[in-house]
Amino acid sequence: MRIGLIGAGRIARMHAQNLLELRHSSLGQVFDPSADRAQELAERGGARIAGDVSEIIAGTGCDAIVIASPTETHIPLMLAAAKVGKPVYCEKPLAKTLDQAQRAVDELERLGARVMIGFNRRFDEGHALLRGKVGVGEIGRLQTLQITTRGPNGVPTLAYLVGSGGLFRDKCIHYLDLARWIAGEEPVAVAAMGSVLADEVFNEASDFDTGIVSLRFASGALCQIDVGRRAVYGYDDRIEAFGTKGLAKSGRVRRDSLTTLVPGAVTQSRFPQDSTERYRQSWMSAMAAFEGFAMGLNTDVPTLRDGLAAQRLAEAATISAMEGRLVRLEEVGG
Amino acid sequence: MRIGLIGAGRIARMHAQNLLELRHSSLGQVFDPSADRAQELAERGGARIAGDVSEIIAGTGCDAIVIASPTETHIPLMLAAAKVGKPVYCEKPLAKTLDQAQRAVDELERLGARVMIGFNRRFDEGHALLRGKVGVGEIGRLQTLQITTRGPNGVPTLAYLVGSGGLFRDKCIHYLDLARWIAGEEPVAVAAMGSVLADEVFNEASDFDTGIVSLRFASGALCQIDVGRRAVYGYDDRIEAFGTKGLAKSGRVRRDSLTTLVPGAVTQSRFPQDSTERYRQSWMSAMAAFEGFAMGLNTDVPTLRDGLAAQRLAEAATISAMEGRLVRLEEVGG
Amino acid sequence: MRIGLIGAGRIARMHAQNLLELRHSSLGQVFDPSADRAQELAERGGARIAGDVSEIIAGTGCDAIVIASPTETHIPLMLAAAKVGKPVYCEKPLAKTLDQAQRAVDELERLGARVMIGFNRRFDEGHALLRGKVGVGEIGRLQTLQITTRGPNGVPTLAYLVGSGGLFRDKCIHYLDLARWIAGEEPVAVAAMGSVLADEVFNEASDFDTGIVSLRFASGALCQIDVGRRAVYGYDDRIEAFGTKGLAKSGRVRRDSLTTLVPGAVTQSRFPQDSTERYRQSWMSAMAAFEGFAMGLNTDVPTLRDGLAAQRLAEAATISAMEGRLVRLEEVGG
Amino acid sequence: MRIGLIGAGRIARMHAQNLLELRHSSLGQVFDPSADRAQELAERGGARIAGDVSEIIAGTGCDAIVIASPTETHIPLMLAAAKVGKPVYCEKPLAKTLDQAQRAVDELERLGARVMIGFNRRFDEGHALLRGKVGVGEIGRLQTLQITTRGPNGVPTLAYLVGSGGLFRDKCIHYLDLARWIAGEEPVAVAAMGSVLADEVFNEASDFDTGIVSLRFASGALCQIDVGRRAVYGYDDRIEAFGTKGLAKSGRVRRDSLTTLVPGAVTQSRFPQDSTERYRQSWMSAMAAFEGFAMGLNTDVPTLRDGLAAQRLAEAATISAMEGRLVRLEEVGG
Repeated sequence: MRIGLIGAGRIARMHAQNLLELRHSSLGQVFDPSADRAQELAERGGARIAGDVSEIIAGTGCDAIVIASPTETHIPLMLAAAKVGKPVYCEKPLAKTLDQAQRAVDELERLGARVMIGFNRRFDEGHALLRGKVGVGEIGRLQTLQITTRGPNGVPTLAYLVGSGGLFRDKCIHYLDLARWIAGEEPVAVAAMGSVLADEVFNEASDFDTGIVSLRFASGALCQIDVGRRAVYGYDDRIEAFGTKGLAKSGRVRRDSLTTLVPGAVTQSRFPQDSTERYRQSWMSAMAAFEGFAMGLNTDVPTLRDGLAAQRLAEAATISAMEGRLVRLEEVGG
Repeated sequence: MRIGLIGAGRIARMHAQNLLELRHSSLGQVFDPSADRAQELAERGGARIAGDVSEIIAGTGCDAIVIASPTETHIPLMLAAAKVGKPVYCEKPLAKTLDQAQRAVDELERLGARVMIGFNRRFDEGHALLRGKVGVGEIGRLQTLQITTRGPNGVPTLAYLVGSGGLFRDKCIHYLDLARWIAGEEPVAVAAMGSVLADEVFNEASDFDTGIVSLRFASGALCQIDVGRRAVYGYDDRIEAFGTKGLAKSGRVRRDSLTTLVPGAVTQSRFPQDSTERYRQSWMSAMAAFEGFAMGLNTDVPTLRDGLAAQRLAEAATISAMEGRLVRLEEVGG
Repeated sequence: MRIGLIGAGRIARMHAQNLLELRHSSLGQVFDPSADRAQELAERGGARIAGDVSEIIAGTGCDAIVIASPTETHIPLMLAAAKVGKPVYCEKPLAKTLDQAQRAVDELERLGARVMIGFNRRFDEGHALLRGKVGVGEIGRLQTLQITTRGPNGVPTLAYLVGSGGLFRDKCIHYLDLARWIAGEEPVAVAAMGSVLADEVFNEASDFDTGIVSLRFASGALCQIDVGRRAVYGYDDRIEAFGTKGLAKSGRVRRDSLTTLVPGAVTQSRFPQDSTERYRQSWMSAMAAFEGFAMGLNTDVPTLRDGLAAQRLAEAATISAMEGRLVRLEEVGG
Repeated sequence: MRIGLIGAGRIARMHAQNLLELRHSSLGQVFDPSADRAQELAERGGARIAGDVSEIIAGTGCDAIVIASPTETHIPLMLAAAKVGKPVYCEKPLAKTLDQAQRAVDELERLGARVMIGFNRRFDEGHALLRGKVGVGEIGRLQTLQITTRGPNGVPTLAYLVGSGGLFRDKCIHYLDLARWIAGEEPVAVAAMGSVLADEVFNEASDFDTGIVSLRFASGALCQIDVGRRAVYGYDDRIEAFGTKGLAKSGRVRRDSLTTLVPGAVTQSRFPQDSTERYRQSWMSAMAAFEGFAMGLNTDVPTLRDGLAAQRLAEAATISAMEGRLVRLEEVGG
């Protein structure tokens, strides 16, 4: 299978590298408005440069498409791919606004679009094992789901922040997706709070660097998400599911297994420094899942509806934090 | 110093045992409406039985008083002790209602009452070390405080629940106190959610068995509390303080240091089964702190104002969970 | 039960403090050649000073005796106590030489002496749980037992070292006892090595500060002991029993449960600094076991034969390390 | 660079897969006496089958050679490669006997052979970090090195065992290499013990399934190795270096970061099941190091002299265990 890659930024480069390790796929074509970036990526991946996106989408050089271009291009590209029947892997979020996302999903479904949304965290071994434990009832009835995500070790640029949609729509959306995926049901209410405590740039961007989210699910199960946009010690994600029969935890991941003991301290290995390092395995597994999905072998991937549901939660959390009130999901979109 | 103990229930018996190990104190007198219970406790502690509480408070047999009787007796007893100038250790909460508590604290302060409130969790070594780290700025500016408390392994009786004031006023109040004690500032908003998921008795008592609380502090620092009224695996408390320079954690406490590795599992030691086992050291240290407080050597103990502040937070959390909305602290009491 | 304490040094003071917490016992009399030390200890423990040891042994003021005086006094004191039928708790080792120990044990047994040897490590919760797991076959057939003991954080004086009998006879003897106690059988061969690497004082004392011991048991099970006389990070003991069905571990014990994460490091709580801190619980439990033993309620305590077997192993290890050869147990004493 | 692979067994297949991921190399040719096995491997790796080994060694199809054929072929193949100047990666051990190994190394050095010995454990991240800590003096002067290796979860065939040279020459040789590599010096004495406790097949093969080794280094530093040929819970390696300033540990490696807490147990993730899973990263890194070595960019690889030194230690350990005595290195070969 030859895969066309749209975009040549940080995430696109990571996908390109992962594509090289797939059994049955190769990188066919690359497009990016920056010809230099496209050129560099194409060379490394043994691929050709496409003159424009339609060459990738409508041409015969690619059988499947990975969309890693800016958010506003996601819907037009998915629609174009749907019209020619090519399977697509698309980065989150679906669209700049929930309204656009909603209409696009309806349209894409009518066209029979085959889309996998890039919620790579689902493919993390620990998180997936945790979901399995919850799913088979090993912890009984779910009472509280607790998701912590902090990091990376660094502050984004103002330009990035301004275009990102804010803490809850950008970083937090992954964990809102994990919450409903692990719980296996939909939230009905959201209460979020946000603050700027770590860096002034977040104020300039009218964004938050620190946030907490409370979710109530339809069954009464509760969820807490704790999200820090920067953590000086690295990238630190952790999920605990507490239920009537016990607890399952997808724990902190460290870089290695070294420990030192000197007077006054037991020092363990460092944390991964950013999401690329922390979630390396999950990005790779997500690409492998997409290969299977594109070949018709695997349908257990994040869908358009998952993308939409997470975007709606992100919207609700943003409203809640901005307006200082609890938001019922029925108020938002739908 | 001879200490008078009012009450002979579970908590009172624990205090009695701890009093026996103090350097400079002994158990002087015990009072309980059940003469049998009082008798048993007095015998074990080498103390005399008092005919009524006034014998303990106004008599010459005791220099300091520990109040471990039902909530509605707390204020009258503290007032009586204040009038004779005896130092008091009083279990939480101050009163059945926030209003009563507020008026009582004003009155007690006018009388110059010397009261230590029984927030024993503050005396847990791990929690106290954590607070120290936060206080000296080791983690930088506090961003998120995350408090988890689950357990014990068992369900309270309906009778207990009905009299308890509910999840947030009963168990959770300890952790609301810890939150403001560790953060070193006051919350300004509370969003709480509660559910019944673990046992039907909580529905009968119009109470919750599972709760989550979000707090915003004046500085913008955020706090999450996750409280489970029952945990089949034991009593599991944990606090994490995340800040701009790092993270400090007062971790899960296990019973021992045994691990077994058999096919498919690495099994570590069990958890303490209830708060008595989990917080044994902290109860002992709290009694020792009271001895110092009563002798005028130590003033760093939970005060009447701390008891009142925690009760106000518990009230706000209860309203928030009941009414499904965010509550600003200024709405409550004050 | 009134207990007589012979000795007022570091270990004796610890025993005195623990005796105060026993249910059915009190400290009756104290003797030490230094009247000042004896006086101080007696005062603290509410006991009387004895003019000489015979007052404690033969007099009516004490029902049981704790011997914490220098090694050369152990046998005469135990013999004297045996003659009056008083139960004895005696610190290790039995005697300065294996030969003396051997003859004394024969004599003491003939006299029907009731002696508990002060192998307090057996009463450590973790170690005792580990032994239980091995005993009931939870790890299958024992293959390898691995014992690590390092610390304290400090160097003994030359005077102490010269009188101690050396690394294997002094500190290591506790772990040689644990080895045979956990394995439930006797070693048949010993290969030990020793070095001076940490401090020159060990060379001056013709002793080692670092040692390793290999044991072969009769069944073929193997054991490694790794003993460090000083560890700058604290007191660090750990035991692993590996068998055909799995592994059980009595792990490192830390002082508290605090962890901090700052850039580059995950720092956990400190280690106990010396054996007194590390084994506080085990010393207390040993005293409680002695109370039960003296009252005839408990016979599961380290016996004279255990003391002798451990001393023989220590002798074999010393010979092995000194002569640079494997030593068969049958060569030594017996 | 095109790499020729001699052998198509389990280890060869792993190397082939790792070679595919190297930046600058491809699999050129494969040879194995079993044409089927060679065919399968060649197909997967996009390589050609060689008619015989000389085609790989002397032909123009390969620039470097990986030797993963039976031990007795190692020396002839390395000699042939040395004569044509091709760099070689050769699996341990060098030869069936120490004598052969010694003569071969002399000869190979005279020929200027460029050989990297397959001590892949050196390339494990944790072990390499540990060595770095020791090397820069972070733990002060090394006192005790403790190496544990247990597993895999399974029993080798009698045929394998009979040809393996026994526990110390086969599995243990990796850890003898690690010991001298981490300590940075040579052992002068060895005391080893071996037993059959896990499976009768080891008796049939006149081999051990359980072994312990004590090493004394020239400086007086001591080392313990604990080796279990089978561990039902998986593959469990761990190294601790204890010194005058502290301790560094390359800890147990688990498969994932999942933990579950149910009544009575905290269960953590499983162990890797065999060395292929446990040391996946190190095998990959070793191949990458070989690529650098073959290209003349990297000389920090295990040398022929390292291979010889480890074999000598394995010989000494075997003699020690067989004859029940301490062996001085000077007695063995040299």
